[in-house]
Amino acid sequence: MPRTSNKDVHPRECSVADTLQIVGERWTLLVIRELLYGVRRFDGIARNTGASRDILAARLRKLEAAGIIRRELYNAHPARYEYHLTEPGRELSDVLSTLMKWGDRHLHREDPPVRWIHVCGEVLDPVVVCAHCGEPARAGGHPTGRGALLD
Amino acid sequence: MPRTSNKDVHPRECSVADTLQIVGERWTLLVIRELLYGVRRFDGIARNTGASRDILAARLRKLEAAGIIRRELYNAHPARYEYHLTEPGRELSDVLSTLMKWGDRHLHREDPPVRWIHVCGEVLDPVVVCAHCGEPARAGGHPTGRGALLD
Repeated sequence: MPRTSNKDVHPRECSVADTLQIVGERWTLLVIRELLYGVRRFDGIARNTGASRDILAARLRKLEAAGIIRRELYNAHPARYEYHLTEPGRELSDVLSTLMKWGDRHLHREDPPVRWIHVCGEVLDPVVVCAHCGEPARAGGHPTGRGALLD
Repeated sequence: MPRTSNKDVHPRECSVADTLQIVGERWTLLVIRELLYGVRRFDGIARNTGASRDILAARLRKLEAAGIIRRELYNAHPARYEYHLTEPGRELSDVLSTLMKWGDRHLHREDPPVRWIHVCGEVLDPVVVCAHCGEPARAGGHPTGRGALLD
């Protein structure tokens, strides 16, 4: 079988890949997690994620440039900022919910570290459904469009 | 304000973080994407993701060790394998659905590269809802448990 050479690489056009260019890195998603928990200041985010200060500062800049977070000055001298999710940033909580559910099921089945209580009062069990029919998205389907090549 | 020292780092206990230890890397999630598209052989996965062969081989080993994919021999001499998602692996399609939706909304609003046709016949619009009440998971809530510290 011939080996793939670099010239053969034509990555699939894909919103998953493009989203991962922005948030597809452990620390980035953990920063978003902290903002969802209401931790808004640099030191708290650093402590709760375990990210180094240099990496964290770089990730915050990248998230701000991408319109996922915004900074608010809370202390003028010296300048200190709190970080907040924008609306596109809050939408990423769906990504985190699905990651959490997978980890709860497969890595912490007996004793999940966190349970979210939904506004309905029950422990949140996030399920991904089709907005049209309400059945699980995973029930099946097939891809169409320019990124749907099969090879 | 005192600076965080390394001794102050106590990362939050979290299924998101633990899941990202396994799949929180661009190429890993793109491998899972290819398997969801039905691309099962090394060369096709390499071509469609753009991953180098060394990185791809390492990611495939990691995913197999984590029980997310399994190998099946399809050619004995020389030994060649196809890769398949296990049931835990298929569950990760929910993570990819939410990443795709975010990218479609915020990076490709006019012209998403791929549309998935759900088994119901409609274009899949994946929404994350609470299994108990059916309302969006993002409607709100609060965390409980040992990983729910706020700081």
